[in-house]
Order: sequence, then structure tokens, then C-alpha cells
Amino acid sequence: MRAIFEQELGQVGEGLLQMARQVQAAVRDASTALETADLQLAEQVIAADDAIDTIERELDERCVTLLARQQPVATDLRVIVSGLRMSASIERMGDLARHIAQVTRMRYPEHALPDQARELFAELATAANGVAANVVALLENHDLELAAAIEREDDVLDTLHQRTFTTTLADNWTGSVPQTVDVTLLARFYERFGDHAVSVAQRISYLVTGDLDVTTSD
Amino acid sequence: MRAIFEQELGQVGEGLLQMARQVQAAVRDASTALETADLQLAEQVIAADDAIDTIERELDERCVTLLARQQPVATDLRVIVSGLRMSASIERMGDLARHIAQVTRMRYPEHALPDQARELFAELATAANGVAANVVALLENHDLELAAAIEREDDVLDTLHQRTFTTTLADNWTGSVPQTVDVTLLARFYERFGDHAVSVAQRISYLVTGDLDVTTSD
Repeated sequence: MRAIFEQELGQVGEGLLQMARQVQAAVRDASTALETADLQLAEQVIAADDAIDTIERELDERCVTLLARQQPVATDLRVIVSGLRMSASIERMGDLARHIAQVTRMRYPEHALPDQARELFAELATAANGVAANVVALLENHDLELAAAIEREDDVLDTLHQRTFTTTLADNWTGSVPQTVDVTLLARFYERFGDHAVSVAQRISYLVTGDLDVTTSD
Repeated sequence: MRAIFEQELGQVGEGLLQMARQVQAAVRDASTALETADLQLAEQVIAADDAIDTIERELDERCVTLLARQQPVATDLRVIVSGLRMSASIERMGDLARHIAQVTRMRYPEHALPDQARELFAELATAANGVAANVVALLENHDLELAAAIEREDDVLDTLHQRTFTTTLADNWTGSVPQTVDVTLLARFYERFGDHAVSVAQRISYLVTGDLDVTTSD
């Protein structure tokens, strides 16, 4: 089963990996642009998202062509269907990195983040970078340890997301209303980024082990 | 082409329609629960989301079985692949209705919405109900006028979503920080609800006309 999986995934895997690498760069640069109020870097992330979307469409076409030409059954079929699902998740991760960059651009030359939230967002960035790196590595070598690591890092993102609520609702919160709005949305973008990575991790795990544990992301 | 589409979509269409009808009820009830701070109704929406998720999984299995057994090509194949995509979008619409209900539950017995935001959210609810009804109708009869109506209603949701920013950032905004956070997230849930509906509308349009205009939702 593993052999068939490796062979079939090879046909869609390259596109997924290409997307995942670009998403890794996007979320890294989006976080840096947010931390440093770097308009040029934010613009670059926003512009680069088109390339991710283009790969997604090509990948989808390739999957449909594979389905039509190879008439696959059983595992091969599931690999391709999973490829379609994963491409949607990774594309969405790219959108979320772009959203982070868009908030940075909107507030420039101001910093979107008030000082009180900077440490929290440094931690969110670290966790998101870890998630993105592990998605790339998981697509490269299908090591299920990486899938487990992604789930753990997603838990970290969820906890940090919750902490933004306690931060903005604390008595000592001095952020303005726009800062409160930005912090609320930015933290949600990071949290969703993790959810989509978990979805990819679960689909890869399923393909490797045959054990479906795909809870819906929320 | 239309005949093949009708025939093939019939095989996955019933599940999609079932999901869309449940989403229609979910977003209606979630909005009512939000407006009236109705805990019981909010709980009901949250509990009912599991049923939508279950239909999605069954539908996905059915699509994969169809692919394996019928070895479809060309249009038939695209119908099934689109079915997989649409089930993910509709499932996500259900999640967003659940999120609205979860905010209501979290703030109960308080109202999540301050008075200043109530009219705006009444308009968001009306637009979301319109979107949900048109997704159901579009899946029933594939009338492309409905797809166009969904895009227009999504524009309304986008405009209302933008208006929540001008509302919370206005000098006369007296909402507390938790209310600002809630309003920010709730409006985003409605806005994303519309995006997923547009994605469904575009896939149906593509199947009917063969003209792909699927921009990525964001």
C-alpha cells in the first residue's frame, strides 16, 4: 500500500510541495513585515499569493487528468482525491499569510501591533513558521512524527489565540479600538493557518496508515 | 453536456442539497439566537452541526465510490470532483453558523451585540439567509440567475462587514472591548459564509456553462 501511495503521490506531490514551500516563505515574511511594519515586504507577500493560486489550479487540473487517464481505484484514487483536498488547504494557508500582510499594509506607517501584543505575536509567528516547515517536511518524506508535531504546534497556536482574548480583555489593555480589531483578526488568521495544516497532516496520515481521523477544522 | 451534468450531479446532488438545507436552518437559527440571546437555540445550532459533518463524510465516500466504480471521464468526472469541492464549502458554511452560535452561548445571559451593532447584524442576517436560500435553490434547479444573486448578496455581506469596521472605529462607538472583539469576529463569520456560497455558485456555473471563473475565496 505504501509503495502505491508513494508512486501515486509522486504525481501530485510535486505541486503540493511547491505550494507548501511558497506558503512557508509567505507566512515567515508576513510575520516579519507585521513585526517590523515593513510595507515593501508586506506588498511582496500579497503579490506572491497569486503564484500559489496558480499552482493550485494547475495541480487540480493534473489531478483531474490523472483521474481521467489512469482510471485509478482504491488507494491510488484516494491519493488523488486527497491531493485535491490538500491543495485547497495549502492554498488557504497562503491566503491567510496574505491577510496578515494586508493588515500590515493597511496600518502602515503605523505598527498594527501595540507593544502589549508584540511578544504574543512573536510566539504566534514562531509556531506558524514551525507548522509551515513541518508541512513541507511531511510532504517531502511522509514521516508521521511530523504530522504529530503539526498537531502539537496547532495546539500552541490555539492556546496563543485564546491568549489574545485574555490580553485584550485584561484591565491593563491600553490598545486602541483599531488595535483591538487588528489583534483579534490577526490572531484568528494564525489560528486558522494551523487548522489547515492539521487538515493536511491528517490526510497524509490517512494515506500512510489507512486510518481516517479527519475532524473538520473549525 | 447539460444532460450528462444533470444525470451525474443527481448522484452527488442529493447529499449537497441535504447539507445546504441544514446550513440554511443553521444560519437562520444562529442569527436569531444572536439577536435574542437565546441559549437553547444556540445550543441546538451547535449540536446540529455534527449532522452536517456526517453528511459531508458520506458524500465524500459516495464521490470516491462513483469515481472508482464508474471510471468517469470528461464532464462526469468534473461533476464529481466539483461535488467534493462543494461539500467542503457547504460544510464550512455550517461551521461558521456554529461559530456564531458559540459566541452567543459564550456571552449568555448577556447579549453579545451592543445596541449600536444590532441593526447592522440584522442586515447581515438577512443577507446570509438570502445567500443560504439561494444556495439551496441553485442546487435544486441550476438556474444561473441564482448564482448571480449569490454573488450580489455576497457583495452586500462584504459591504456590511466593512461597515462593522467603520462602526467600531467611529468616535461614538461605546462598545466594550469584549463587544468589539465579538462584533469583529461575528462579522467575519458572516463574510466568510458568503465567500463559501460564492465558491459553490461558481462551481455550479462552471458545470453548467463550462466557463471557469473560480477566484479563490479570501
